[in-house]
Amino acid sequence: LNEPELIARYFAPLAGPGGLGLRDDAALLAPPPGTELVLTADALVAGRHFFAEDPPADIAAKALGVNLSDLAAKGADPLGFLLTLALPPDWRAEWLGNFAKGLGEASQAAGCQLLGGDTVATPGPLTLSITALGAVPQGKMIRRAGAKPGDALFVTGTIGDAALGLKIRQAEVSGDPLPDWAQKLAPADRAFLVGRYLRPQPRLAAIPGLRAAASAAMDVSDGLVGDLRALLRASSVSGRIELADIPLSQAARAALDADPSLEETIFCGGDDYEILCAAPEAAASMLAGFATRIGCCGAPVAPDLFVGADGREKMFSRDRFSHF
Amino acid sequence: LNEPELIARYFAPLAGPGGLGLRDDAALLAPPPGTELVLTADALVAGRHFFAEDPPADIAAKALGVNLSDLAAKGADPLGFLLTLALPPDWRAEWLGNFAKGLGEASQAAGCQLLGGDTVATPGPLTLSITALGAVPQGKMIRRAGAKPGDALFVTGTIGDAALGLKIRQAEVSGDPLPDWAQKLAPADRAFLVGRYLRPQPRLAAIPGLRAAASAAMDVSDGLVGDLRALLRASSVSGRIELADIPLSQAARAALDADPSLEETIFCGGDDYEILCAAPEAAASMLAGFATRIGCCGAPVAPDLFVGADGREKMFSRDRFSHF
Repeated sequence: LNEPELIARYFAPLAGPGGLGLRDDAALLAPPPGTELVLTADALVAGRHFFAEDPPADIAAKALGVNLSDLAAKGADPLGFLLTLALPPDWRAEWLGNFAKGLGEASQAAGCQLLGGDTVATPGPLTLSITALGAVPQGKMIRRAGAKPGDALFVTGTIGDAALGLKIRQAEVSGDPLPDWAQKLAPADRAFLVGRYLRPQPRLAAIPGLRAAASAAMDVSDGLVGDLRALLRASSVSGRIELADIPLSQAARAALDADPSLEETIFCGGDDYEILCAAPEAAASMLAGFATRIGCCGAPVAPDLFVGADGREKMFSRDRFSHF
Repeated sequence: LNEPELIARYFAPLAGPGGLGLRDDAALLAPPPGTELVLTADALVAGRHFFAEDPPADIAAKALGVNLSDLAAKGADPLGFLLTLALPPDWRAEWLGNFAKGLGEASQAAGCQLLGGDTVATPGPLTLSITALGAVPQGKMIRRAGAKPGDALFVTGTIGDAALGLKIRQAEVSGDPLPDWAQKLAPADRAFLVGRYLRPQPRLAAIPGLRAAASAAMDVSDGLVGDLRALLRASSVSGRIELADIPLSQAARAALDADPSLEETIFCGGDDYEILCAAPEAAASMLAGFATRIGCCGAPVAPDLFVGADGREKMFSRDRFSHF
């Protein structure tokens, strides 16, 4: 199979109208009138951002999903994406077929068409790079740097599931015994946490509400505590977070009950792909349907406070998770 | 140096206005009114598309250049690009500084702003992926599939230099002796050929002429013979090429004189990054300033002919060069 045959077989069937059947040298896209383009790119390397052993459909959905998560956080409706794929020598047709199937399904679910890309061989690990494009009404991109003192802070979904799921998945892949806390979980809870690691759910449904209400937003990919600090610093405000208000799934709560030291993994671990945002108190009701209030923004020069249920400040020993 | 520090030091200084200082999660771009976007992506892997030992400024300029070459071939004015960079463990600050400098210079020369990207670590070879965006007036993208019977065929610049330069560079990097033909060349000719391999020159100056005259175009990246066949097949026409009319540099001609068997390397080798196009005879004068007529398009069902100076058909044993 040479490169044109590989593209024709696996990727051309997924291409949207802008992809021109992946038979030309470039894609063509007319952004909706009155909009601006929002662009984001994320690269994923096997063994670092996912396990080479992960189901190929999950790898594909995750590579697209982490980019869609950035678009959603910026209030941008997904338009399309380009994928470059560096395949290691041992790739198999069945693997690539399942990868393409997962990619097509994720693309369709998000209304984000495959526009083009490139396929190359590598002696290294499987490496994917996706550039995704979205559209916002002119001037309406939600920045990191827009939070004001007095704004409330919100987060979508639940926090910490993927970081816990990663610990379980690491044991599964390496054949090591599960951590004690994971052994105490119901199998369905374990499966839920691993699923949250394998397949981020980009919060596309939040886009209209974010656009209407948020003063600042970013997606939570490197841990809530560190990403929160990044948003606060970019906005030149301080923050006070009520840790007890941070939304946890039933599975994460069960894990935390089994091992209270998981608090740091939950609040500082990565791969949540939820959306963190700030909004004026008056606009908070517009976010209530899909996000949870976790704190508020304060004066620029004040320290950030993470406050436990006991009212005492909690210090975290590590800050942001780094994929680098 | 963590990832935000690395981005702030090396890449933020290169970012265009749409890159928002590389301090947000996404870039913002307003395409010029009345235009459509043209998008292309190319990935490059060390040891396959370039040598890890190549000067980092050349690697950067090449990664951007091969994408700009696609935009130029489609008649699109460059707008901006996103870069994902997978760095091997042994990267050094000096290397990255020179890489960024080369990238910035190439970006400025082309008027193509850095919009964003991602930096990740890899245990494998250095891997770069660039997505570039350009703009064409609505409906004016030049397709591969537009050539008509009777159209003339043109190519920019000179053909075969980079494929010859690669052979010299391979010997330089491996420490093997130069091939006989290369030993017979003047040092300046050798340097010219290697330079053509290391630093493709995207033909941005051809864009207005191509837009005005070309019925079909693509860039020549996988060898002239194979790429020509790809354009002819996409357009459902046949072609007749006068090999003696294919423009060669003085250095390539000297190499061919020294070793006539290099003909196949010159006409079928890759990495030219010139533009191949078709145009009606009546429009040919608009291309005369920057391209050379090499043949014409014929009836759909006829065979393609590559005709030598002696009037006899030349057969090539290999077709397209594959980077895959």
